[in-house]
Amino acid sequence: MISSSIFNDLVARIAEAGRSLALGTQATAGDPLALCENLLSGKGEATGLAIAEQVFDAYGGLDPEGRRTFFRQISERFSVDDAALEKAVEVWRAEGSSAARALHFASEPRSQELIRRLNRAPGGTKALVGMRADLLDAVREDETLQPLDIDFQHLLASWFNRGFLELRRIDWSTPAAILEKIIAYEAVHEIAGWEDLRRRVAAPDRRLYGFFHPALVDDPLIFVEVALTAAVPDAIQPILTEDREPLEPNKATTATFYSISNCQKGLRNISFGNFLIKQVVEELRREFDGLTTFATLSPVPGLRRWAEQETETEDGLLANEQRDLVAKLNGDDPEIADDEVLSLAAVYLLHAKGRRGGALDPVARFHLGNGARLERINVAADLSGRGRANAWGMMVNYLYDLKSIEKNHEAYANDGSIAASTAVQRLAKSRKRSSAHV
Amino acid sequence: MISSSIFNDLVARIAEAGRSLALGTQATAGDPLALCENLLSGKGEATGLAIAEQVFDAYGGLDPEGRRTFFRQISERFSVDDAALEKAVEVWRAEGSSAARALHFASEPRSQELIRRLNRAPGGTKALVGMRADLLDAVREDETLQPLDIDFQHLLASWFNRGFLELRRIDWSTPAAILEKIIAYEAVHEIAGWEDLRRRVAAPDRRLYGFFHPALVDDPLIFVEVALTAAVPDAIQPILTEDREPLEPNKATTATFYSISNCQKGLRNISFGNFLIKQVVEELRREFDGLTTFATLSPVPGLRRWAEQETETEDGLLANEQRDLVAKLNGDDPEIADDEVLSLAAVYLLHAKGRRGGALDPVARFHLGNGARLERINVAADLSGRGRANAWGMMVNYLYDLKSIEKNHEAYANDGSIAASTAVQRLAKSRKRSSAHV
Amino acid sequence: MISSSIFNDLVARIAEAGRSLALGTQATAGDPLALCENLLSGKGEATGLAIAEQVFDAYGGLDPEGRRTFFRQISERFSVDDAALEKAVEVWRAEGSSAARALHFASEPRSQELIRRLNRAPGGTKALVGMRADLLDAVREDETLQPLDIDFQHLLASWFNRGFLELRRIDWSTPAAILEKIIAYEAVHEIAGWEDLRRRVAAPDRRLYGFFHPALVDDPLIFVEVALTAAVPDAIQPILTEDREPLEPNKATTATFYSISNCQKGLRNISFGNFLIKQVVEELRREFDGLTTFATLSPVPGLRRWAEQETETEDGLLANEQRDLVAKLNGDDPEIADDEVLSLAAVYLLHAKGRRGGALDPVARFHLGNGARLERINVAADLSGRGRANAWGMMVNYLYDLKSIEKNHEAYANDGSIAASTAVQRLAKSRKRSSAHV
Amino acid sequence: MISSSIFNDLVARIAEAGRSLALGTQATAGDPLALCENLLSGKGEATGLAIAEQVFDAYGGLDPEGRRTFFRQISERFSVDDAALEKAVEVWRAEGSSAARALHFASEPRSQELIRRLNRAPGGTKALVGMRADLLDAVREDETLQPLDIDFQHLLASWFNRGFLELRRIDWSTPAAILEKIIAYEAVHEIAGWEDLRRRVAAPDRRLYGFFHPALVDDPLIFVEVALTAAVPDAIQPILTEDREPLEPNKATTATFYSISNCQKGLRNISFGNFLIKQVVEELRREFDGLTTFATLSPVPGLRRWAEQETETEDGLLANEQRDLVAKLNGDDPEIADDEVLSLAAVYLLHAKGRRGGALDPVARFHLGNGARLERINVAADLSGRGRANAWGMMVNYLYDLKSIEKNHEAYANDGSIAASTAVQRLAKSRKRSSAHV
Repeated sequence: MISSSIFNDLVARIAEAGRSLALGTQATAGDPLALCENLLSGKGEATGLAIAEQVFDAYGGLDPEGRRTFFRQISERFSVDDAALEKAVEVWRAEGSSAARALHFASEPRSQELIRRLNRAPGGTKALVGMRADLLDAVREDETLQPLDIDFQHLLASWFNRGFLELRRIDWSTPAAILEKIIAYEAVHEIAGWEDLRRRVAAPDRRLYGFFHPALVDDPLIFVEVALTAAVPDAIQPILTEDREPLEPNKATTATFYSISNCQKGLRNISFGNFLIKQVVEELRREFDGLTTFATLSPVPGLRRWAEQETETEDGLLANEQRDLVAKLNGDDPEIADDEVLSLAAVYLLHAKGRRGGALDPVARFHLGNGARLERINVAADLSGRGRANAWGMMVNYLYDLKSIEKNHEAYANDGSIAASTAVQRLAKSRKRSSAHV
Repeated sequence: MISSSIFNDLVARIAEAGRSLALGTQATAGDPLALCENLLSGKGEATGLAIAEQVFDAYGGLDPEGRRTFFRQISERFSVDDAALEKAVEVWRAEGSSAARALHFASEPRSQELIRRLNRAPGGTKALVGMRADLLDAVREDETLQPLDIDFQHLLASWFNRGFLELRRIDWSTPAAILEKIIAYEAVHEIAGWEDLRRRVAAPDRRLYGFFHPALVDDPLIFVEVALTAAVPDAIQPILTEDREPLEPNKATTATFYSISNCQKGLRNISFGNFLIKQVVEELRREFDGLTTFATLSPVPGLRRWAEQETETEDGLLANEQRDLVAKLNGDDPEIADDEVLSLAAVYLLHAKGRRGGALDPVARFHLGNGARLERINVAADLSGRGRANAWGMMVNYLYDLKSIEKNHEAYANDGSIAASTAVQRLAKSRKRSSAHV
Repeated sequence: MISSSIFNDLVARIAEAGRSLALGTQATAGDPLALCENLLSGKGEATGLAIAEQVFDAYGGLDPEGRRTFFRQISERFSVDDAALEKAVEVWRAEGSSAARALHFASEPRSQELIRRLNRAPGGTKALVGMRADLLDAVREDETLQPLDIDFQHLLASWFNRGFLELRRIDWSTPAAILEKIIAYEAVHEIAGWEDLRRRVAAPDRRLYGFFHPALVDDPLIFVEVALTAAVPDAIQPILTEDREPLEPNKATTATFYSISNCQKGLRNISFGNFLIKQVVEELRREFDGLTTFATLSPVPGLRRWAEQETETEDGLLANEQRDLVAKLNGDDPEIADDEVLSLAAVYLLHAKGRRGGALDPVARFHLGNGARLERINVAADLSGRGRANAWGMMVNYLYDLKSIEKNHEAYANDGSIAASTAVQRLAKSRKRSSAHV
Repeated sequence: MISSSIFNDLVARIAEAGRSLALGTQATAGDPLALCENLLSGKGEATGLAIAEQVFDAYGGLDPEGRRTFFRQISERFSVDDAALEKAVEVWRAEGSSAARALHFASEPRSQELIRRLNRAPGGTKALVGMRADLLDAVREDETLQPLDIDFQHLLASWFNRGFLELRRIDWSTPAAILEKIIAYEAVHEIAGWEDLRRRVAAPDRRLYGFFHPALVDDPLIFVEVALTAAVPDAIQPILTEDREPLEPNKATTATFYSISNCQKGLRNISFGNFLIKQVVEELRREFDGLTTFATLSPVPGLRRWAEQETETEDGLLANEQRDLVAKLNGDDPEIADDEVLSLAAVYLLHAKGRRGGALDPVARFHLGNGARLERINVAADLSGRGRANAWGMMVNYLYDLKSIEKNHEAYANDGSIAASTAVQRLAKSRKRSSAHV
């Protein structure tokens, strides 16, 4: 491979050549919008890499307000060509479906081609991912930018197609520059420093795998942490503790996915987790004959917020007793029976629905959508601040059973029905019966 | 990186799991169209990689006729959703340009999403490039497949974006498996075997560079062969000969691009050559301070065919004398003055236009489109069978002068005006004057 | 790793610094002996790499006669320090065995330290291996150089200790620069070119493994070619032929070592083959469960010469009939019974002894010394010119049976007894009986 | 490369094969001495790797006392063969110097061949380095083991010849497993953790280089830390501090070697530092044109101990005033003039001699032996506990001036004369004059 520094040099030289040429080009130096116009014009074909680089430079110099303005301008200036679209619609009216594809290309906003040309610059993909992270912030303040975000998402989804991703194991022979990012990106159970990281990647019964993309060298997209265990674990602390005897991995029967973190904000809504888990399952099966069970130990991030909101409404899912339970839990009342708490969580996980009909809990939605089964709910499983704040310390095991993944996925996708173990179903049912009594 | 064999194993297992599940799935085994339906359905999300793999397997088992049928079915079955499009057009009529983007996505043919999902399979990109090579053949027999080809081209162009390509030098430390492909792919001056290849990649005054894509491991997309020389060469034989004293590369003043070959038929019309030449120029500048001139030694593939056609028309570009010249050349008359021959070629290169207004000669079109200048025409430059058959042995030097590349490119792109040296201009002019006399 | 070109630059700079310093140094430029004196003096410690490099440069400029002179001078000038040795012997006489080690170090010839210091130069090991190849030639003309060769052999044997060797598989992804060497080094069954090489390294049922040393980058020390087969083969032609259907390697039961080549003349008498074969056996066992038999298909290089010499002596191992057989074989008489020929070879292999008591045949000596068993002799097994010239076309299978390797080796090492199959033993015996009759 | 785990498997299998063979072998299992006998016997040639591995295993199971016993047994059992030596001496008496080499080989203790055979095992070199570390401890308690240590040192020095070492830059892309060792091995200015390490390897004006040996994968032998600075620094704190603005490295004029650490106790007395510094100088010169000065910032570990001992003797190097000064320094008297302190150090560095005539201070001995010049002494340069305890906070700059390295080295080697700047010389002289007064 020829180093990117060399390549940057190329860009700099061509850029220089370009600059010294014409007043027109000089006038645009530093004005990202004018540079984008150039990039989409004929000039862009001759010295496109240099101009794209200049766009990123100019953009990098803008403050958040300047960036929002830039996005708005892009959005307006490089939208669909109305005249061309009008004409394509007429042809389609006349010629029917054979002209539909022409209509499709005629209606492509110019912003898409702009993004494609920006991507040609060295480091362009990384810069675009960063740009989209800004755009997501900007969209929250200005909804009219959403269509532009759809363009970014559309192209990034295409470029980060599963076929281009590479699975890598992260361990103690991994460069520090990548490990440092793992520490920074871990979003579920914070990594307390290098010693903690070492325990998670270098112990014989621990694994960490990530997806990487060739254009984002040494920067993971997503990673998953795995504990090889003798049984499906019911709490996170024994997994993360410093003082433990590692299990000889050939004696493990169970691989527990205890943390999954997305790394790139700019790739939001582009999903890798499903592919990652399934490929890691296969890696582990190949390496360790004794593994028979693949499960998660997952947080329940939305439980407590949901339960508290439920207590404020009459026609929710909760019975009166359960409303009282919420108060007791918040008061840390020691007299609470585990079963009651578990039932509360089971109702939430099986019956609380989001806007689009799926499970309300985002982690449940992810694993159920992947075809996993809701296997077990555990009390006192995560006693960290976050664990208590989100779910009074509860965690969930989702089971990945290859034989039923497709069936579960389809059932969930078609009518939202959730695969759950008999135990979890009973917890939810018994509770509903009792509420029905009331 | 985790080996693809492992990954194939994963796919096989999941596929197996999938197959053993439901009669529905079993019924589709081997039927690529039904598998494509599955892939686009909900099933595709749970066990998509396995289904995509099955599609490629089933496709691989088809003969050319079966493949054409498959393309036709895909084309019809996975076209634009007319109802959705109809509705989107109505909304766009009502709401104006804010709804244009929705119209764009509504008019996307389902074949595009199909291609994206096929790409997820291990080896998917390579398989899709191969599939498109078949499709290009099929299009020649059945024009109705052209829209489907546009989908392939659109997505492949996006995936083979310059930002994802990696420049590599090919030399004698390159694996034999890649070198073997270089021998097979060389399309301009055939490589006669390993010894010939060795001369082209391992001599101190020779270089070979290619672009590679991460998804096509060890399979080049395009490569260029370079000779470091003391002057711009006027013939190919001294470059390729076995018996020559290599030039000490630090004494070279000129880098001559004497062969450029596209390697992947399935990537036709997706252009890399422009980027390749410009990056190689920069690599060489960095490595060798003494290089001041970057030029090509290029064939003129269309000259003879064009000249012979011209002799059959009255209102062409040729004067009577020149028509006689064509006959003399074909008769190998030894009495022909070089200047006359050169003028004939100059008229062709400067004045013969293709359908879209650019140069008729495809090699000229490529280099002029890149911003190069038509510098010199050489007689007796390629006396091989092909060189004589195409251009009575003539070859051309195009000059890549970084300072004028952008200007040349724009002039050519805007009004088709061709940058040429005074000498070449004079050759064409003198001839035109004389034809005007007649 | 920091490239050796950088390192060469270092050496050049220091050398320059050194040169410009003192008249003394300048005077020695180009005189390898004077440079060697410097290298062993105090100067050598400050700027030793540069001086060592200069020695190799100066040596490289010598013709064969000059090199012999150089070796003679080294031999005389850098021999054992007699005075020091005398003194050490006295001390040892006085103090006894506690002073033996001091005597050992006192008796070390200075040439050994010279060789160690030469080895410090970049590329020094490679240059020393080349120097010893020259020395071996020189020894044949001048026996007084043998002690110097012993110094080289002693140190090279230490540096090429098994612990420093790396086993690599050579296949079609290996750099051409290495493959080219394999073609050149193959000493048993010539490789006819790249296509022949491809058949030997890239077919699914063929393997080629070599030992490499870190200081001889990309230059093998020894390599072995392996065919995976369904039975122990009785001829070489079916293995090397172009027209054959490769065996699915998982169906192979037998790994046949059909060629072993030492690559570095300068490492003569430093033995790697034993370790190579045994490690390759283990590699293959790991990769292919079905392999149960490990054997060779080996030439019998000394058979014919021995037999012809035997016919000239009365008191040899051959009976009269066998003497006649030799004549018939040389006359290519078609009426010869296989059994007679095989018996002749069996007598040679089992009973013809070399000077040190081992088998006379060098290939037999190697495999028997490794603990292999003489399993089978094959007629019409190598009908190439060399095969006929050496052994009337016969070849031998030696069997590597891990369970008996140690026992066989010890028996052979202790009293020269040769492990052989019953069949081979019977062949030799029956013949001896019949000769006894006469 | 074929993984060592595979290789270990080989060894295990052969070992197993070996074990199951003969009672003789079984009897020796676990007895390292008996195993060593086997290894040196004929058995060792057939199954040597396995036996060597068993020796290391058995040795690994011994406690320190057991290891000392083992060394003693080795020492006695595998010493020089007295009879052979006696005979060789006789021959040498008779034949003169031509038989000296034979005497040399005859006097080689068998322990050397034992060590060579142990080295053949996978991981053997690493294990031998570890064994020698133990041996060094054992020698301190039992001087009779010293000869055995000389054998180890002799062979390790040969195997860790400069020609086999590889220079690597250590930076933030280095695997954590290596970085962790850097933290552990740093012997001069302790690395306080990963953040401290990051500052030393990843800041643009910092470099860390180490020597590696192919047989000690990922385990450095020695490393040096470098600061790129605008002047020769006079204190360590500004280099190590967290709060500093890095210098743009292209603006640096000076490369300061501020820490050199040997990593392998088992390689004691085998010297790499000289080669390391010189190669790093060249690396840096190549990378940064602006560098003109190469210097160290070094501790003076022996100053205080020496000065305190001097105060107890009448006929030392110190004048009365200076004896008082030592007391004042120990009392931390604030009224001390820098010049007096500097003179004290200058006397120590220039005039205090070790047993063999070189500088008494080990760090001075190392740099002066390399040909460096004693350039400057700095007060208040290292105010850490160790800096105060060793040298009342003083540090020294040694200057590596390529042009005078050889001259300095020779002068120092020949007659112990120390290259020092005029300033340092004056400091020492002025002081001596004043002592002369007294």
